[in-house]
Amino acid sequence: MHAPVELADVAADVLARVRDRGPRVHCITNTVAQQYTANMLLAAGAIPSMTIAREEIVTFMAEADALLVNLGTFDAERRGAIEVALGAVDAARMPWVLDPVFIEASPGRAQFARDLLARGPSVVRLNPSEFAPLFGGDPAADAAMRVAKACGTVVALTGGTDLVTDGARRAAVANGHSLMGLVTAMGCASSALVCAALAVESDAWLAASSALAALGVAGEVAAQTARGPGSFAAAVIDAVHSLDRATLRARARVS
Amino acid sequence: MHAPVELADVAADVLARVRDRGPRVHCITNTVAQQYTANMLLAAGAIPSMTIAREEIVTFMAEADALLVNLGTFDAERRGAIEVALGAVDAARMPWVLDPVFIEASPGRAQFARDLLARGPSVVRLNPSEFAPLFGGDPAADAAMRVAKACGTVVALTGGTDLVTDGARRAAVANGHSLMGLVTAMGCASSALVCAALAVESDAWLAASSALAALGVAGEVAAQTARGPGSFAAAVIDAVHSLDRATLRARARVS
Amino acid sequence: MHAPVELADVAADVLARVRDRGPRVHCITNTVAQQYTANMLLAAGAIPSMTIAREEIVTFMAEADALLVNLGTFDAERRGAIEVALGAVDAARMPWVLDPVFIEASPGRAQFARDLLARGPSVVRLNPSEFAPLFGGDPAADAAMRVAKACGTVVALTGGTDLVTDGARRAAVANGHSLMGLVTAMGCASSALVCAALAVESDAWLAASSALAALGVAGEVAAQTARGPGSFAAAVIDAVHSLDRATLRARARVS
Repeated sequence: MHAPVELADVAADVLARVRDRGPRVHCITNTVAQQYTANMLLAAGAIPSMTIAREEIVTFMAEADALLVNLGTFDAERRGAIEVALGAVDAARMPWVLDPVFIEASPGRAQFARDLLARGPSVVRLNPSEFAPLFGGDPAADAAMRVAKACGTVVALTGGTDLVTDGARRAAVANGHSLMGLVTAMGCASSALVCAALAVESDAWLAASSALAALGVAGEVAAQTARGPGSFAAAVIDAVHSLDRATLRARARVS
Repeated sequence: MHAPVELADVAADVLARVRDRGPRVHCITNTVAQQYTANMLLAAGAIPSMTIAREEIVTFMAEADALLVNLGTFDAERRGAIEVALGAVDAARMPWVLDPVFIEASPGRAQFARDLLARGPSVVRLNPSEFAPLFGGDPAADAAMRVAKACGTVVALTGGTDLVTDGARRAAVANGHSLMGLVTAMGCASSALVCAALAVESDAWLAASSALAALGVAGEVAAQTARGPGSFAAAVIDAVHSLDRATLRARARVS
Repeated sequence: MHAPVELADVAADVLARVRDRGPRVHCITNTVAQQYTANMLLAAGAIPSMTIAREEIVTFMAEADALLVNLGTFDAERRGAIEVALGAVDAARMPWVLDPVFIEASPGRAQFARDLLARGPSVVRLNPSEFAPLFGGDPAADAAMRVAKACGTVVALTGGTDLVTDGARRAAVANGHSLMGLVTAMGCASSALVCAALAVESDAWLAASSALAALGVAGEVAAQTARGPGSFAAAVIDAVHSLDRATLRARARVS
């Protein structure tokens, strides 16, 4: 397990590499989240692409460095796009993130998410309410470690404190701000940031922990000037853009 | 008819209940408005859901407290989703709001809106230009009272001064700011706020009047710091989030 | 070729006419860009409409003053909508703008863009990376003049310095700010502004140059107060809304 200072430095390194390399992150995501997700990726230094047209996915994936599969809009077109995109992921051994949005509200979506889990995502980023329909059981740290190990994936369970585990290692990221829960697509955007980190860091556990620590710290910085959730949404983008090593070292609370 | 101070207090009560109970508002709305609508609901204390996948609507509606039907995107998928959602509304006797966006520009959309009107929405929230294609006649106060009575619905006709009537009672809400007309989806978001109010206030006329007064006051507060329509859009979200009884009492202009 | 001061005044005139007449700009654009594009048009004084439902396009186009065709979302529904909309454009001799988003990533999209080019857009607004797949060759000024002349269109090639040419005349607009590249849909919104300008200025070269100069100046004004790309996105909208002749004269750098 990494000490706080160490992960802060890893996060700063990961962020520096994203800014330097500008990885392309292809996002199959919901219409509510597209704009905020794209702006989050751009602020971090990555390049978003978002097409879901089945006939185009292959050529877009050929230039992509990571894939985000977000189930927030669950239509036939996106399901088809996901299938094609995952074929490209398998062929290129590309990292990908599964974000099983709102599966607790829809048995069909939950079944689809379980099928995707079997395809081996690098990271599953989810909320506590999405844990049981995907993995079974309660969203406790021990259960998360067990399913991460069993599924061979990194589980990033976000909330008041984010838990990131690959089954062997475990990080608790205690950053963030309550206003983050009042901005639609903040969770979706955090999954996209994890994608950008995976594009430049092959250790998926470090990548996910770094991205979530960075976003949590950015949320705290943003809350210092925001007047409410509207200005906060923009301030988080600003804070991600200007986030530096000193701020990460001073603020990251990882154990 | 309520005096200004009374409606200000009712609005404060309604807002307090929304914040306390966190009602789920299911929104079948257009892609342009989804993000702003979701953020408006979150700022008010409600929980948005937005799926339009036909096979999922029933399970999402099972957890919803109110439904928004917005015609701003008018495609086969949404029309199918609306049909299924209204079945759930009928079964659960759930309040719902019809927002007949841009029906003046499309006869097919206008016909669809008239068919929906026959299904008995709790509230119709519309602009003056949408009045004639939906109800026939000019958007005057007397005509609005007549059609509200005839249709058994609350008509919320928004503009410089908002008119809210159930056929017997009538409120004129003279709040708001001209910048509200320069933010896309502001009307759509106001309909979503009416939905959130309906989820906690069974008197649809009070619910609609409260939501529109609250949003109008929030717009005035936002205009005090905004530098233009871009910063204003975020400032309205901020102002809804922090709106309190004292501000409502001081600013609500309802007759 | 116009001197800087002249184009600043033309741009101020065009902007004044947009504010005065409030042209309706129909946008067939991608879901990521819809909200920002609509807010940009509203800030400039134009009225956006965005339906892509095939059965509605004709009635929406009947009230439109200009059409934007943006290929950022490339699905069957939009392709059908574009076909119908261009029929209305031909019948009404309406100006229209082609924005061939991301065609370098998709041969099918590039072919579709070339087919649209043959339909005679008033202006093609594109990035350097989109030049080769659409026109062939490198995105140099001479090549742009040649293809503009051959295709009978205005080519507006945007980047660090924007190049606008109708084959005979050429403007280099050296305004803008690097943060503009970090806001998703900024290019899409610039194409929409060109559309609004075309609705009130029949010289397509002047219209495109004016719109791009205005947006570039607005970007510079916005950068003075923005704290990063999040607040910048809103500040650009604010700056477009309040842009005046004096600022255009002081800042426009056109040669």
